Amino acid sequence: MVPLSGNQAVAYKSPGIVEIIDTPYPTFELKDGPGVNPSNIGRKVSHGVILRTVTTNICGSDQHMVRGRTTAPAGLVLGHEITGEVIETGPDVEFIKVGDIVSVPFNISWGRCRNCKEAKTGICLNVNPDRPGSAYGYVDMGGWVGGQAEYVLVPYADWNLLKFPDRDQALEKIMDLSMLSDILPTGFHGAVSAGVTVGSTVYVAGAGPVGLAAAAASQLLGAAVVIVGDMNEDRLAQARSFGCEAINVGAGDPADQIEQILGVREVDCGIDAVGFEARGHGGGAGAQEAPATVLNSLMDLTAAGGSLGIPGLYVTGDPGAADEAAKKGSLSLSLGTGWAKSLSFTTGQCPVMKYNRQLMMAILHDRIHIAKAVNAQAISLADAPRGYAEFDAGAATKYVLDPHGYLSA
Amino acid sequence: MVPLSGNQAVAYKSPGIVEIIDTPYPTFELKDGPGVNPSNIGRKVSHGVILRTVTTNICGSDQHMVRGRTTAPAGLVLGHEITGEVIETGPDVEFIKVGDIVSVPFNISWGRCRNCKEAKTGICLNVNPDRPGSAYGYVDMGGWVGGQAEYVLVPYADWNLLKFPDRDQALEKIMDLSMLSDILPTGFHGAVSAGVTVGSTVYVAGAGPVGLAAAAASQLLGAAVVIVGDMNEDRLAQARSFGCEAINVGAGDPADQIEQILGVREVDCGIDAVGFEARGHGGGAGAQEAPATVLNSLMDLTAAGGSLGIPGLYVTGDPGAADEAAKKGSLSLSLGTGWAKSLSFTTGQCPVMKYNRQLMMAILHDRIHIAKAVNAQAISLADAPRGYAEFDAGAATKYVLDPHGYLSA
Amino acid sequence: MVPLSGNQAVAYKSPGIVEIIDTPYPTFELKDGPGVNPSNIGRKVSHGVILRTVTTNICGSDQHMVRGRTTAPAGLVLGHEITGEVIETGPDVEFIKVGDIVSVPFNISWGRCRNCKEAKTGICLNVNPDRPGSAYGYVDMGGWVGGQAEYVLVPYADWNLLKFPDRDQALEKIMDLSMLSDILPTGFHGAVSAGVTVGSTVYVAGAGPVGLAAAAASQLLGAAVVIVGDMNEDRLAQARSFGCEAINVGAGDPADQIEQILGVREVDCGIDAVGFEARGHGGGAGAQEAPATVLNSLMDLTAAGGSLGIPGLYVTGDPGAADEAAKKGSLSLSLGTGWAKSLSFTTGQCPVMKYNRQLMMAILHDRIHIAKAVNAQAISLADAPRGYAEFDAGAATKYVLDPHGYLSA
Amino acid sequence: MVPLSGNQAVAYKSPGIVEIIDTPYPTFELKDGPGVNPSNIGRKVSHGVILRTVTTNICGSDQHMVRGRTTAPAGLVLGHEITGEVIETGPDVEFIKVGDIVSVPFNISWGRCRNCKEAKTGICLNVNPDRPGSAYGYVDMGGWVGGQAEYVLVPYADWNLLKFPDRDQALEKIMDLSMLSDILPTGFHGAVSAGVTVGSTVYVAGAGPVGLAAAAASQLLGAAVVIVGDMNEDRLAQARSFGCEAINVGAGDPADQIEQILGVREVDCGIDAVGFEARGHGGGAGAQEAPATVLNSLMDLTAAGGSLGIPGLYVTGDPGAADEAAKKGSLSLSLGTGWAKSLSFTTGQCPVMKYNRQLMMAILHDRIHIAKAVNAQAISLADAPRGYAEFDAGAATKYVLDPHGYLSA
Repeated sequence: MVPLSGNQAVAYKSPGIVEIIDTPYPTFELKDGPGVNPSNIGRKVSHGVILRTVTTNICGSDQHMVRGRTTAPAGLVLGHEITGEVIETGPDVEFIKVGDIVSVPFNISWGRCRNCKEAKTGICLNVNPDRPGSAYGYVDMGGWVGGQAEYVLVPYADWNLLKFPDRDQALEKIMDLSMLSDILPTGFHGAVSAGVTVGSTVYVAGAGPVGLAAAAASQLLGAAVVIVGDMNEDRLAQARSFGCEAINVGAGDPADQIEQILGVREVDCGIDAVGFEARGHGGGAGAQEAPATVLNSLMDLTAAGGSLGIPGLYVTGDPGAADEAAKKGSLSLSLGTGWAKSLSFTTGQCPVMKYNRQLMMAILHDRIHIAKAVNAQAISLADAPRGYAEFDAGAATKYVLDPHGYLSA
Repeated sequence: MVPLSGNQAVAYKSPGIVEIIDTPYPTFELKDGPGVNPSNIGRKVSHGVILRTVTTNICGSDQHMVRGRTTAPAGLVLGHEITGEVIETGPDVEFIKVGDIVSVPFNISWGRCRNCKEAKTGICLNVNPDRPGSAYGYVDMGGWVGGQAEYVLVPYADWNLLKFPDRDQALEKIMDLSMLSDILPTGFHGAVSAGVTVGSTVYVAGAGPVGLAAAAASQLLGAAVVIVGDMNEDRLAQARSFGCEAINVGAGDPADQIEQILGVREVDCGIDAVGFEARGHGGGAGAQEAPATVLNSLMDLTAAGGSLGIPGLYVTGDPGAADEAAKKGSLSLSLGTGWAKSLSFTTGQCPVMKYNRQLMMAILHDRIHIAKAVNAQAISLADAPRGYAEFDAGAATKYVLDPHGYLSA
Repeated sequence: MVPLSGNQAVAYKSPGIVEIIDTPYPTFELKDGPGVNPSNIGRKVSHGVILRTVTTNICGSDQHMVRGRTTAPAGLVLGHEITGEVIETGPDVEFIKVGDIVSVPFNISWGRCRNCKEAKTGICLNVNPDRPGSAYGYVDMGGWVGGQAEYVLVPYADWNLLKFPDRDQALEKIMDLSMLSDILPTGFHGAVSAGVTVGSTVYVAGAGPVGLAAAAASQLLGAAVVIVGDMNEDRLAQARSFGCEAINVGAGDPADQIEQILGVREVDCGIDAVGFEARGHGGGAGAQEAPATVLNSLMDLTAAGGSLGIPGLYVTGDPGAADEAAKKGSLSLSLGTGWAKSLSFTTGQCPVMKYNRQLMMAILHDRIHIAKAVNAQAISLADAPRGYAEFDAGAATKYVLDPHGYLSA
Repeated sequence: MVPLSGNQAVAYKSPGIVEIIDTPYPTFELKDGPGVNPSNIGRKVSHGVILRTVTTNICGSDQHMVRGRTTAPAGLVLGHEITGEVIETGPDVEFIKVGDIVSVPFNISWGRCRNCKEAKTGICLNVNPDRPGSAYGYVDMGGWVGGQAEYVLVPYADWNLLKFPDRDQALEKIMDLSMLSDILPTGFHGAVSAGVTVGSTVYVAGAGPVGLAAAAASQLLGAAVVIVGDMNEDRLAQARSFGCEAINVGAGDPADQIEQILGVREVDCGIDAVGFEARGHGGGAGAQEAPATVLNSLMDLTAAGGSLGIPGLYVTGDPGAADEAAKKGSLSLSLGTGWAKSLSFTTGQCPVMKYNRQLMMAILHDRIHIAKAVNAQAISLADAPRGYAEFDAGAATKYVLDPHGYLSA
């Protein structure tokens, strides 16, 4: 079952460029390589498993690296949205078995620190020597090798992996289940932390995959009305395809448009599914970056007493930013507006493990069709560069790499 | 707009018998009458409104009185599930206006005591001189006159009433909105207190209207699978009609039947929508009452760590019970089973106001079709006695009285 | 019992100046006057009571007006921290009686809107025609007359007032109970929203009265260690007097100082008890205003996964600010730092009613000595101008006005 | 550091009798022995550590076995309240080191199942082959060897153990820290699940060690008044020693006595620290067992809307019970009383890991003095039989075994 040869993988090469490279087949040790934290080199992974990749998705946060806005080194293997089949288990693994089909939470955690015990797996204290929190294939996140590859090593497998109860059922719904590694829990976390519940009115800023997932998650949580804002008409059409209202924020004051839909100018719950690479409203193709624009807008559009869920990424430093403040990760926020309305704000990576089991149940019992909502499309591993390019150009598509042909089967 | 004549109403006469009687048109004072608490007689209600009844439903808990299992006096006007049109407002009313279409929470509260401030409107300290908690048309609940009538007085109207935002929209969806006064929030409270959330597996004991509402509410909350158990095949068919699984608990061990559906013998969440008038499993028509049977069964069927929501009514005394313990309201519970599984239990009246606004939003935006789920059927006020009889015989129907023909319009 | 003459009161005159003026004795109507919202003029208050003021405190947020940093008109009667004795009740009042000693939550609410029903009394929808939320004696808050006066009108009295159970007991502990109208609940809300619980380590930025109250509240909630930071040594000494650690943020990196105390450089919970008028660390007397400095510092000092409670006031506009961004209420926040650490932020006025009853119980049973913690000192109404001046100069004192000599008795 | 000889331990011999026996020194495997679950025999424990016992306490639930009311086999080594020094670590252990002083949660869990991930470590799915949940030295709990011994094996050590930050500090406060393995978290869980918070009034049924711990925990949570009820005057005196009110439930109606203290006949929060071996109120020495009496009494004494925390043990079967219902673990509960008051009930083992870190912080920073509250007394391992006997006779003492003289040092 184990391959003799190497391990084809998608790697960052230079700003705008990814390529397919040959990498070593993983073993139960974290070896040196591009982006591996020196303190992690040589770390034993007897608690790990090796997966044959079933699917692995391209994520918007990969694009930050590919656009050259981070310090990611050339050769870094990308990919943190992984679904796989277990083909080898380390000696300490007790529960996970060869042949299991599993979802891998994008945040790596070991399961035994204070934060893990509180379900805060996005800020595990023992997998990234530099700071709390880690991920596969991501700059400054510990150096765990990315999963846009044929094979990938998953540490602390009994803790990290979500096993699907039935192999055939899993493969049948694999496009939906593939969204459990990141995007669906991330959208769900945004909705939950925005306080979305039965009967809520919700505004989601951004109709990229995370925004669409947040919208679908809001529906699953019972929201009465979900409104999605963006400037990309294809993405707005995608939002409308599963029952959302959609507004083009470039075409007029969002409050006016919300009033047309709801009769009032504010929603109960606001979700920022854009993050620091926001562009100013009304700008169209030539719009300048305006990293605070989404949050300031959400403070206006969310009713007093509401909460803002902020799954969109904000960075501590952004060397490629347009101005000095943004380069240091500073935003000019109208916090007084938020304060006067008693708003709350929740930031940070989604702790995937907190939600993935329940969302798997919702998928397996047809309560959500997330692959359709985000317009998931399978492409081959070799086509990854095209996927990156089209996604960067604004395609209303979630690209799912299929390195071994599980999806074509 | 105010009628010259009196006020036709449905009253309890004797065990098994209800009748239509003439009663006085309400004024802004609680006058003496059958079941009115002496300390409440003469209470000024300048904070109240008078409603022309749009709909008023027959409830399972009315049946406890009608069956003669309480100390309800003859002549007590029944009815606590009320939707109405405001036709007069007391001098202290500021917000509610004549012409508003409103839903009346069945639990009466004044809105200014410690419990009301904590949203525990089911145990308001200042409306029932005998104990916390009150309701319209119910024995030992303070004596506020029931709403199965043409007109009804609602105290503390600015606090108690839920105003529908648009009259035409409200009348169009009135059968669904009529379920907001009791049954939908009650089922929803059962689901919430059982811990139902996205991806849950749920078992609802009882397919009467409350059970069906709890099932529909569980779906709205995102449950993956909702299983309803009963011995009445018509009611089970009703449960299946909106996507529930349904099991006949008289036809075999419920755990076996649950295992057939889920692959495991336990659910995450248990809801008791039966209460103290339960009959033994497997008994069919001749089954003996066995008041503890539902709760004991739910402790078996709910997985360790789960919660039981108990909207089904348990009484402090039951003069008509089969044995001495039950007459005192004592149940023989296998609490050790629950303890070994770390179960939690939530009892009591649903505090309707905690949920009715959000559920109204869900109805108005077509997220739930509760009238269909409970098979709501409109009948005239004059037909109330037939409705009581058919409901008592086990009809899979929620009877909605229509005193003024709003529904036929 | 009702006075023949007028009503001495403390009013804002011009930047830096308050004075004692004669005002009319209140009636059950909100009359025109400095700062009264035109839509509120003539509002009937039959639900109100008139209090003889027992105590009324000077608050840091009054200073914003007095310093001339708001649009408060000359003649505005100040004061939103009120404890009183009921001397007249409006005709709709049912529960509150003449002779009751009561605490008045600084946020005015009517108790019947969606927000009030959710215990969000700081953003009541029906007392301030301009926006959600209201307060006595405060600019742009609806125009309800301030309570730094001999007599004051309290609307919706059955809802708003917290009645002390026993008059003698109340008068004996009146200095502590006087802190229930604002400062103790505000500090407590800061602590609760920062996630303070048993065993927490807490950092409170600011040792003014709100900071000291937040520190004392944190202890009451079971915090293991409470560290208070400020640059005013008198206020730091006050913090140490009841068991807090205290650090001078002008004397070195706060993280270093925290490490000396805790062995780690971060705390579990951060509380901003400063707000927009923060000065840069290390600046001493000549320090420039740096409105974002406290929040940015708290993001550094709070551990990943923590929460920030922000009772300190941030304004939507600050005409007196040092730079253009601050004039519009914009802050340059390092949100990326917070995002990387998955921090949460809670802003806004404390909804006093959510906490005042339980805090009253804690005071009456000697679980907290808040007057001592904030160094409450009684002065006469006539001495109010001196109190304002000393407080503005940084006195480690909470000034309590005693218009009728209740405290000297 | 590893002993050449065996391992002295306290074992159950026969009803009423415990004795000191020689047992094998533990290895990293669960070997056959009295009470070991057949499916667990031979289980590898490479994730475990071996502790030299610092302290190990006698628990009331041990008494159930010793009194012969369970199916515990002769030779079962007792003890689940363990604090130790690590002397050997298994090959998979990463974080815990030799020399660490650690607290062992009494409930054993592996940290990677659904329940563990939700912090429900009392019902771990993978340590006890028979059912969710496990413990050291307890009948039907998987067969993990008890810790009333010189040495003990702890599985899944990185997950299970709470490491004290500093050895010297830990040994100085070791009597308090010894209460972290069970009794303090158990009391705290009772208080938390009863809803105890700042300002609460609390009634704790039972002044044994769990009741006293629940009372001390309630104070730590900010309760205004804590009332403890029992019939043993020595234990009541112990409750009074740290500021509780104490009532002799044999000396009059508890509601009357509560009214004397509080002015009202009910408390906000009820805690059952007795369990199934309750005796009838008013009975004194000759009182009959009345397993439902505590819960029925708590339903009377807890105000509407309150919660009952039930740390007291209720069993699924009790062969030694006085009547047939109790033998099956059935209780005759007045559930109707609870329902009318909208009470909630939380049962089950305390998930120690959910609370032990924060409680350690509270101990280390002198926020609670639990050893004094429960009157902890150290005795030698050889004196364990005397400790069991005196505790069974009602001594107001928590017995702490000191097998290696750490406490005398």
